[in-house]
Amino acid sequence: MPSGFRPDLAAIRAAHERIRPFIHRTPVLTCTAIDDMVGARVFFKCENFQKVGAFKIRGATNAVRSLAEEQATRGVVTHSSGNHAAALALAARQRGIPAYIVMPRNSPAVKKEAVAGYGGRITYCEPTQPAREAACAELVQATGATLVHPFDDEAVIAGQGTAAVELLEEVTDLDAILTPVGGGGLLSGTLIAAKGIRPTIRVIGCEPALADDAAKSLREGRIVPARPPVTIADGLRTSLGHKTFPIIRELVETIALVEEAEIVLALRTILERMKVVVEPSAAVPLAALLNRPLGLAGKRVGIILSGGNLDVSKLLPS
Amino acid sequence: MPSGFRPDLAAIRAAHERIRPFIHRTPVLTCTAIDDMVGARVFFKCENFQKVGAFKIRGATNAVRSLAEEQATRGVVTHSSGNHAAALALAARQRGIPAYIVMPRNSPAVKKEAVAGYGGRITYCEPTQPAREAACAELVQATGATLVHPFDDEAVIAGQGTAAVELLEEVTDLDAILTPVGGGGLLSGTLIAAKGIRPTIRVIGCEPALADDAAKSLREGRIVPARPPVTIADGLRTSLGHKTFPIIRELVETIALVEEAEIVLALRTILERMKVVVEPSAAVPLAALLNRPLGLAGKRVGIILSGGNLDVSKLLPS
Repeated sequence: MPSGFRPDLAAIRAAHERIRPFIHRTPVLTCTAIDDMVGARVFFKCENFQKVGAFKIRGATNAVRSLAEEQATRGVVTHSSGNHAAALALAARQRGIPAYIVMPRNSPAVKKEAVAGYGGRITYCEPTQPAREAACAELVQATGATLVHPFDDEAVIAGQGTAAVELLEEVTDLDAILTPVGGGGLLSGTLIAAKGIRPTIRVIGCEPALADDAAKSLREGRIVPARPPVTIADGLRTSLGHKTFPIIRELVETIALVEEAEIVLALRTILERMKVVVEPSAAVPLAALLNRPLGLAGKRVGIILSGGNLDVSKLLPS
Repeated sequence: MPSGFRPDLAAIRAAHERIRPFIHRTPVLTCTAIDDMVGARVFFKCENFQKVGAFKIRGATNAVRSLAEEQATRGVVTHSSGNHAAALALAARQRGIPAYIVMPRNSPAVKKEAVAGYGGRITYCEPTQPAREAACAELVQATGATLVHPFDDEAVIAGQGTAAVELLEEVTDLDAILTPVGGGGLLSGTLIAAKGIRPTIRVIGCEPALADDAAKSLREGRIVPARPPVTIADGLRTSLGHKTFPIIRELVETIALVEEAEIVLALRTILERMKVVVEPSAAVPLAALLNRPLGLAGKRVGIILSGGNLDVSKLLPS
């Protein structure tokens, strides 16, 4: 895909064909107890059951499989708070090429182990955007590997949009889809896919009030950087990118903000009532649906459960 | 069913017809990562997704639905460490009759809340078998309600056997089924169902070494009482009953014992790799499969994930 070209529904469908052999078709689950709490019919697209435990394998696989052979052999490189790193490492291993991963030192242990387990070659850096980008640039220089940005990349955006394609294949008459928003890869891919398939559908991005850079960016009409990371939803601490921001600005209905306590309660609800493991970021859309007046009473609502890489060690006696 | 009559496969099939409208048909999941760890193909019957989060709704519903109308109106009574209590409360509410529940004071909060949430009328007692039985007897005296024992009851045993029926409907060529064993309701129901449907199948009960009363009972040929409760697998702290013991003694291949650390690691594996929430008791069979030489390498093994009522509060900031 030429750089600067915005992916459209055709690009997402092509991505879907490309990645299908390498990813899981994840199930769509419902939960009567949650429907009753929300007052709507909710369809959860379970990307927590996806390979590497997150939707990120979709974009990473599309990016890796889109590289020409000679370019691919030199490998791929990225910086990520975790799930994209694991995803790129696995996608690269599946193609038999190296993956160089820059990770912040303070990433959750479960995510570091996952990256190493998938064969990623890790370089640690300080947990700031400039430190990540500098380390990446150095690796590109040294290896000739291709940078695959966690979200600000056309092939990644197209890949992330395939989750919404599958969701709408199974539940064709959704009134709305809610996704979490961090860097905006999932949200922008979902917007293009969902609006392309079903123009009347409402798509709402959901983010922690403590990481409200997407809401601010929309309000101010420019990319407002994220504040220092404090939200429990560690996957959503990044700022929007130059490729995701215009798509979101054009197509999204709104960005719903939720408080930390609301995220915790939504997480608890999913663990206790659905009996599935999700990470805090994945609980943000349900937190919005439970606590914000989104005009979705009685509607059919899709939620993308973005990932399941919860650090469960606190649950377990040592 | 006349008292003293041992349920057979026909009784379990009749129970299945009786309870089908009131329970979930739970999915059977597989996990490549776990297959690789075990060296066998494992099929998990997900009773953690069952109503009340445990297989116990099967036996409780069969018992409640087997009562004659006049007898039913006086209600049901039981003592339980939790899941049977919630199950009986829900089964009774579904039939519109009262459920009187005797629970040990030290039951996990999540289980107490569940019982109350399903409309059970709770009486607390000391966490000993005699205290439970005395409180139950008082309630029967006062209300005329029918005692539905958590496991030592023909209708309950027949109901619990329906999980294995469904598992064998979906995976007809299983070489073995593993279940946890506490009071033995699930194991004895599974034995009758599985051996009835597929006589060559191997059925193995799995229990914590710290609650090895079933293994001891088989060895000594008499019911050996459980030691004071210490295992993390709180659902498995009970002793075998006079109705479950003879069935298990006749039909079970062996009782595999597992250490506490093995249970914790199996629990962690299920949470992290399958991304489903189970309670410690449900992890005991996988712990056995991972750590004991059961002769199941390369075989097709069914595991009943007995319940999902894990207390997740430790995971969550307050």
